[in-house]
Amino acid sequence: MASKFTELAIDCADPAGLARFWCAVLGYEVRDEDEADGVVIIGSPTVPEGKDRPGPIPPMLTFARVPEAKSIKNRLHLDLNPTDADQAEEVHRLLGLGARHADVGQTGEESWVCLADPEGNEFCVLASRCP
Amino acid sequence: MASKFTELAIDCADPAGLARFWCAVLGYEVRDEDEADGVVIIGSPTVPEGKDRPGPIPPMLTFARVPEAKSIKNRLHLDLNPTDADQAEEVHRLLGLGARHADVGQTGEESWVCLADPEGNEFCVLASRCP
Repeated sequence: MASKFTELAIDCADPAGLARFWCAVLGYEVRDEDEADGVVIIGSPTVPEGKDRPGPIPPMLTFARVPEAKSIKNRLHLDLNPTDADQAEEVHRLLGLGARHADVGQTGEESWVCLADPEGNEFCVLASRCP
Repeated sequence: MASKFTELAIDCADPAGLARFWCAVLGYEVRDEDEADGVVIIGSPTVPEGKDRPGPIPPMLTFARVPEAKSIKNRLHLDLNPTDADQAEEVHRLLGLGARHADVGQTGEESWVCLADPEGNEFCVLASRCP
């Protein structure tokens, strides 16, 4: 017996805006959008260009409005791998989308880059490029 | 250009213990275990029994030790779908693994059940069974 990790739920102030940011980051599309239930985004299951098989379909991300603002560092965060750019190029792109650098106590020696989304949710851009 | 969501990083007090719990919940296996870097668990890409195609490979989960304890409700949480049991059976199994019921202000009318892992990280068990 097991459960499947089907959705990563993200509390936020602006579901539509934050979903747009993460769609641009991950190349996802909006699957459902509803004032009461929030916004659901999902990666495409189609075969990526130049590949002979579909890539894995990640869990959906769901964005639900909550009254409380982001305060302390999140206990869970996403780690990302650039798929078609090196780390510096991808960080530059993400900053252009509305991300900002985040200080979570890193020393500067790490191989990853810590960023935060427009609502302050920390995430990391890893150095390795996806195969 | 896009980034891929490759890892969900979880801060914790006991990486090995929490990784064991989540392996049992999700049917994952430990991929790497290291005192400095924590524990990485991943779903198997093999074809599930009785299925004619491999299921999606979720992002890895990584568990890293942090000094601060869990305090407020997490801003990100996992939503799970039982794969081979109904919701009540799966909740019963998860409680046996060390989960407990969590109160995040739900009314009791929801279709999902809110639980927390042994370190208090909230997650939900959804009502629908995976196809």
